[in-house]
Amino acid sequence: MNAGDVAWILASSALVCMMIPALALFYGGMVGSRRILNMMMMCFGGASLVAVLWALFGYSMAFGNSVNGLGLIGDITQYAGLEPMLTDNPDASLPAALFTAFQLFFACVTTALVAGAAAGRMKFGAWMVFAGIWATLVYFPIAHWVFAFNSADGSVTGGWIANGIKAIDFAGGTAVHMNAGAAALALALVLGRSSGWPKMEHSKPHSRPLVLVGAGLLWVGWFGFNAGSALTAGHSASVVFLNTAVAAAAGLLAWALVERIRHGATTSLGAASGLVSALVAITPACGAVSPLGAVAIGAIAGAVCSLAIEWKFRLGFDDSLDVVGVHLVGGIIGTLLIGIFATDSAPNGVSGLLYGGGLTQLGIQSLATVAVLVYSFGLTWVIAKVVDMAMGLRIHEEDELRGIDIAAHSEFAYLTDEDPVNLGSAPRS
Amino acid sequence: MNAGDVAWILASSALVCMMIPALALFYGGMVGSRRILNMMMMCFGGASLVAVLWALFGYSMAFGNSVNGLGLIGDITQYAGLEPMLTDNPDASLPAALFTAFQLFFACVTTALVAGAAAGRMKFGAWMVFAGIWATLVYFPIAHWVFAFNSADGSVTGGWIANGIKAIDFAGGTAVHMNAGAAALALALVLGRSSGWPKMEHSKPHSRPLVLVGAGLLWVGWFGFNAGSALTAGHSASVVFLNTAVAAAAGLLAWALVERIRHGATTSLGAASGLVSALVAITPACGAVSPLGAVAIGAIAGAVCSLAIEWKFRLGFDDSLDVVGVHLVGGIIGTLLIGIFATDSAPNGVSGLLYGGGLTQLGIQSLATVAVLVYSFGLTWVIAKVVDMAMGLRIHEEDELRGIDIAAHSEFAYLTDEDPVNLGSAPRS
Amino acid sequence: MNAGDVAWILASSALVCMMIPALALFYGGMVGSRRILNMMMMCFGGASLVAVLWALFGYSMAFGNSVNGLGLIGDITQYAGLEPMLTDNPDASLPAALFTAFQLFFACVTTALVAGAAAGRMKFGAWMVFAGIWATLVYFPIAHWVFAFNSADGSVTGGWIANGIKAIDFAGGTAVHMNAGAAALALALVLGRSSGWPKMEHSKPHSRPLVLVGAGLLWVGWFGFNAGSALTAGHSASVVFLNTAVAAAAGLLAWALVERIRHGATTSLGAASGLVSALVAITPACGAVSPLGAVAIGAIAGAVCSLAIEWKFRLGFDDSLDVVGVHLVGGIIGTLLIGIFATDSAPNGVSGLLYGGGLTQLGIQSLATVAVLVYSFGLTWVIAKVVDMAMGLRIHEEDELRGIDIAAHSEFAYLTDEDPVNLGSAPRS
Repeated sequence: MNAGDVAWILASSALVCMMIPALALFYGGMVGSRRILNMMMMCFGGASLVAVLWALFGYSMAFGNSVNGLGLIGDITQYAGLEPMLTDNPDASLPAALFTAFQLFFACVTTALVAGAAAGRMKFGAWMVFAGIWATLVYFPIAHWVFAFNSADGSVTGGWIANGIKAIDFAGGTAVHMNAGAAALALALVLGRSSGWPKMEHSKPHSRPLVLVGAGLLWVGWFGFNAGSALTAGHSASVVFLNTAVAAAAGLLAWALVERIRHGATTSLGAASGLVSALVAITPACGAVSPLGAVAIGAIAGAVCSLAIEWKFRLGFDDSLDVVGVHLVGGIIGTLLIGIFATDSAPNGVSGLLYGGGLTQLGIQSLATVAVLVYSFGLTWVIAKVVDMAMGLRIHEEDELRGIDIAAHSEFAYLTDEDPVNLGSAPRS
Repeated sequence: MNAGDVAWILASSALVCMMIPALALFYGGMVGSRRILNMMMMCFGGASLVAVLWALFGYSMAFGNSVNGLGLIGDITQYAGLEPMLTDNPDASLPAALFTAFQLFFACVTTALVAGAAAGRMKFGAWMVFAGIWATLVYFPIAHWVFAFNSADGSVTGGWIANGIKAIDFAGGTAVHMNAGAAALALALVLGRSSGWPKMEHSKPHSRPLVLVGAGLLWVGWFGFNAGSALTAGHSASVVFLNTAVAAAAGLLAWALVERIRHGATTSLGAASGLVSALVAITPACGAVSPLGAVAIGAIAGAVCSLAIEWKFRLGFDDSLDVVGVHLVGGIIGTLLIGIFATDSAPNGVSGLLYGGGLTQLGIQSLATVAVLVYSFGLTWVIAKVVDMAMGLRIHEEDELRGIDIAAHSEFAYLTDEDPVNLGSAPRS
Repeated sequence: MNAGDVAWILASSALVCMMIPALALFYGGMVGSRRILNMMMMCFGGASLVAVLWALFGYSMAFGNSVNGLGLIGDITQYAGLEPMLTDNPDASLPAALFTAFQLFFACVTTALVAGAAAGRMKFGAWMVFAGIWATLVYFPIAHWVFAFNSADGSVTGGWIANGIKAIDFAGGTAVHMNAGAAALALALVLGRSSGWPKMEHSKPHSRPLVLVGAGLLWVGWFGFNAGSALTAGHSASVVFLNTAVAAAAGLLAWALVERIRHGATTSLGAASGLVSALVAITPACGAVSPLGAVAIGAIAGAVCSLAIEWKFRLGFDDSLDVVGVHLVGGIIGTLLIGIFATDSAPNGVSGLLYGGGLTQLGIQSLATVAVLVYSFGLTWVIAKVVDMAMGLRIHEEDELRGIDIAAHSEFAYLTDEDPVNLGSAPRS
């Protein structure tokens, strides 16, 4: 075991944890000022619940040995409670406890991402129940499919996407982003549209600076997500880091440019969304492409997602914060473009169409994409329906209109005029 | 010396530094909008003063050889000015300059924590004087007791709690959290209640999003605090990291659940406080327990602290931001529960009551707890009294009511309507 | 290659990336509420553009072999597109891709720093064009001068300041801070004063908490900037880290003290600016001085910059957010004081005047200072003039007065009263 690798994955885990408050800011700024607390609480609450489930049985479901070797689900009993992580195994490449902690935050962040589809209208209790069931039935299995690799000696058996078809997904284009995006679509459909949608005069983004700061901190945290997924501190992590940096920048520029051309101005919401779209798209591809390939993928994601977020208005589903347009579409773009832009001089060592690799990898990537989409969308739809029948998903319309924060959390986010007597006489210093 | 260990402690030190702005957000959001700047300035100002004192003599008092081998205080002359940290000693396990920087931020954060008791009513100059004296007479000695370990060869002699009774305090349940909490209680008592307390219509939490973001960033920074305290990048740090992650999540859920049962709704203030309470409690215990033990400690801390913060209303002391209810109570919970939940398969290698270790460790933990509480509370009370007599602690009541920011810093935090002419015509885009 | 070194530079690169949102907060809080989005967008947009240019040709211009060995500019073709960074070279001390990513963010942050001079009145498109040309013609060459070191075997040839005169600039006092400061001055002069300057009733700092948080996060990110510039995880990085920590604290205290003496109160803007001023000044010096030397440099920078920011009123240039007073002046202070405070027991191993080194190093430092100032100021002035002639730099005065955000980005930053019906009846919970 190399302490340098351990050091980087420790730091990466902290960076991925930072994506929780970062996402809470990014999402929170995009809703109205009487809805931000609920949005942030969905992120923090959902993430916390999943973290505890991870300790109880989630890690085991994702990274336990594959039941019957089918590659569908890990052995739920193998690491239940995580007691085995206390054993120090100097022969391992990383401490088991560390890999557990690193992947824990992947589960937390993915679940929190889904919340963006349900802004402002979902019972908090129902969200928590949904989040727990969703992580258990959807995320943990898909994480097994994509992230659980067989060991060389056969003692560890993992998932069918990682080992069977060998799709490339460096850090979670399928398991994280498409999964969250497909689930968001299903949840949005079951939950129904916000009252007054799509005009939503009562809930416009109330703080765009929070959105930008959230996007910026997501960028920082994403380096842990992507470059941490190398699981070592060396050449691979470095290439991944560089690709993640330049792709994000290209995504911001591309979205901004499309906005400028189509609408005459570049918005902060667009810039933040472009940055995040590109980060989503580079997530599966970060180890497979060159820096210029990363720029291309980031720019394509930024441009396409800027158009994709308008589909909801045409198709009539209320994915409030564009989880579908950004994470589902961005995840698909990145996963499929590996088949085009992959170069065998990159860490993954695979050639895509442009580098003479033919269509094989593109086919593999498509299969993984379809499988994750179908499983995530279908099962999430069922879960949401069941929770709806059991306890109801929606708050009262009246509560929705006056703001979910006070209804669900008995709080307002802001009190800026608590001192009315003095307000008028405040010197404008 | 292993570069991997150095890399992790460098990163950890940066993470602990991040706790300063994170705490400023956490505390700042909890006060009124005309009090936030002072709250943040107490954090930044106190931390900065302590950092400079650390360079001048603080490190020496905490980590110099124990005067007369009594384990009470380090030799103030040994490292005064930190010139010796320029010497490269490749045989050391870590560069001396790095350990110095890492521990520097512990001193800064602990001092800043105390400020939460004095929100909105303490002269800024008096706070700075108090902070400097407090760090010197209270924190530096207690850090010596708890954090200064003897070297195997006897060339380094440390504190009585670390080496004499061998209490377990991985990252500062006693030296940091109980210490800050006891000091906060003493300061709150000497300072007296805010005008209008407990109704305080003039100072409600003015920005709960800041509180949540602050808590989230504290969580991130805490990984440096706890897992950095392993001082190596390996198995121990990894177990500590995992325990810190799951304990925090359990604390948020427990506080939220208690709130839901007692008051019918889960608040963002409660969630943030639950997260922090659990982080406090796991701080001493993070190397001594299993992940399920960490979940238990986090959940107990979240639940108990949610009740403990109400004591101030019954007992009548104005600990404005619940430093007592969260840090003192959380610190005691974590320090004592080591005696219950410690498992010898965890890095500390000690068994608590539940694992057949008997009551011995619980007794040791209790002794350390009492010693720190008595010393910190008693001496802080005296320091606060002396500063009060010398220069006065309180601002004028009138300044308190109109907001300390303008009185102490000649500033208002926010100006959102600087352009009144255009305000009415702003398109609601 | 040591994985520990790689781990620290990976973490450092993420920390430097965090300086982008941190700077956006720091700058954004200092402008009016109808100007913050533009300020943040200048940071994010400029940084993103420079990141892509870095991949295309910027890295090559800065770190390609010196054209004709003159030390003036790197070979633009050598690493264009960064394809060579995909090659794993285990003999290198760091992966080439990692050094590229680390330095990428230096270019991004430096460009974003310049934006502070142009707050609230520059066309966004013109800023983007300016930023791209400026990075290409000013930053990339100066980075070559200062940061590109010759290799021992002569296969790599670098810049004249690093290798010719051997000025000490550990992490960018000249290339980053003086450069940004001189460019800011030139841009401010060409751009002209804001309408209504210096009274500027329409644009006072609208959120001082954001300024403080931004400064705090800059502090955290700066550890990656400075201690990452050691390029290894060992003694040097540790000393640099410690020096950076204590200098920043001393700067905050010094600025606060000067304010207290001169104006009777310590402001949050002053504290934040003092912290940043000291961080600027310690940037070149962090590897050359002792901790007490760092305290001295930080304190001097804090005190002097607190006076320097007033020059703009006397001299009549509108450097809106004091890039000149903080970065230019702070950078000069730090670069020159190396000649005074450098001690040969520090990592750089050079003695300044106080340590018996005579005036030699001070002369070398002065030469580097003058060269960077003249080149940066002069060429930036020309670039700004050319962009002005080509497309105009200023927005309409009317747009300036009602706020650039709506004019340039079709957005307002904040909507806090989106629900007017309920606003009056909001319980003050």
